[in-house]
Amino acid sequence: MRVPEHIGIIPDGNRRWALSNNMTKDKGYEYGINPGLEVFKLCQNENIKEVTFYGFTVDNTKRPTEQKLAFTQACIDSVMLLTKEDCEILVIGNTESNAFPKELLPFTTRKKFGNGGTKVNFLIHYGWEWDLNLLKDADFSKKHILPYIHSKDISRIDLIIRWGGRRRLSGFLPVQSVYADFYVVDSYWPSFTPKDFYDALDWYNKQDVTLGG
Amino acid sequence: MRVPEHIGIIPDGNRRWALSNNMTKDKGYEYGINPGLEVFKLCQNENIKEVTFYGFTVDNTKRPTEQKLAFTQACIDSVMLLTKEDCEILVIGNTESNAFPKELLPFTTRKKFGNGGTKVNFLIHYGWEWDLNLLKDADFSKKHILPYIHSKDISRIDLIIRWGGRRRLSGFLPVQSVYADFYVVDSYWPSFTPKDFYDALDWYNKQDVTLGG
Repeated sequence: MRVPEHIGIIPDGNRRWALSNNMTKDKGYEYGINPGLEVFKLCQNENIKEVTFYGFTVDNTKRPTEQKLAFTQACIDSVMLLTKEDCEILVIGNTESNAFPKELLPFTTRKKFGNGGTKVNFLIHYGWEWDLNLLKDADFSKKHILPYIHSKDISRIDLIIRWGGRRRLSGFLPVQSVYADFYVVDSYWPSFTPKDFYDALDWYNKQDVTLGG
Repeated sequence: MRVPEHIGIIPDGNRRWALSNNMTKDKGYEYGINPGLEVFKLCQNENIKEVTFYGFTVDNTKRPTEQKLAFTQACIDSVMLLTKEDCEILVIGNTESNAFPKELLPFTTRKKFGNGGTKVNFLIHYGWEWDLNLLKDADFSKKHILPYIHSKDISRIDLIIRWGGRRRLSGFLPVQSVYADFYVVDSYWPSFTPKDFYDALDWYNKQDVTLGG
């Protein structure tokens, strides 16, 4: 079986899940924490080397305060849960704003936990435009920008799995996603089951790899 | 009905179509010319303002010579056919190579034909890395790169339709595609029917628009 080296996770549908369970929208996010840990463990079991979670974006912070507080806390809790596992955590996002949670500043360079192993990236207060604008130490003499984007330490993605039925990237890592196969799960992220993950792997196994060739 | 302002077309499956019709792979491309004209006319009818066709990429030129000749000629013929219509044509691609057909050099600034109207863009000898590296007149003082990418004259895309069943962007305009809804047609591009197009529009009409918000 051909297994992806790097999976991107777009955990969408938390608010729709909350509404469909008679909760206010902001209550959905905390039910998305455990699915993240489950996906991590499945990646570990399948020897997937890297997994990137779409936490929240600069755009998302325009939402009502109670939602903003809720998704920020869910992201902090998700990262903290993983510090108890064997993994290597990196948080990428625009730290030059109060919307970036200070609790996650120590993770903006990759940190090893336990015996290390699986690389886990979280996009936190991430923005695709911010990403593509350049790092302060960029060398412009060759006009090659890719070594200087903010997410340069995140590798190319082979498979993106999006929950919640929408068929779009919503600004998720435009450079790393150029060749990614895109699998959509119709159910909402808090309803995650391991079957979602294995169905995606089975589907990926049937795709060819051309890398644009 | 909510109609996209800008549609991206990934006309994939020409070679698989040729094989399934007992032809050699290179013969498929010429059967992709007419579908392009049909899509253009449908866009015109539906008042879609801009359409971008994925012609061929820098990566594609690694293919066998007879295929390379065939897809290059099919792209030239497709552009020439459109010069007889009311439209405004722009060709974007890396012209600093013999792989870029000299016949298309006059179209590298937007040219109006007939009464103008629908903008039609072709990506010809395009590469996402080439696109994201910067124009020679880039002003780096603000480190904002987006005004200086090679495809800066192509607007944001609302809907991408890909024929041939694959669920990936394959390097198609990473910046303009960040929020695009992505619709996949399983049949091969030379088997195009107007129903493919209208099914995609119907599907698009049912998606919400959040632009990452």
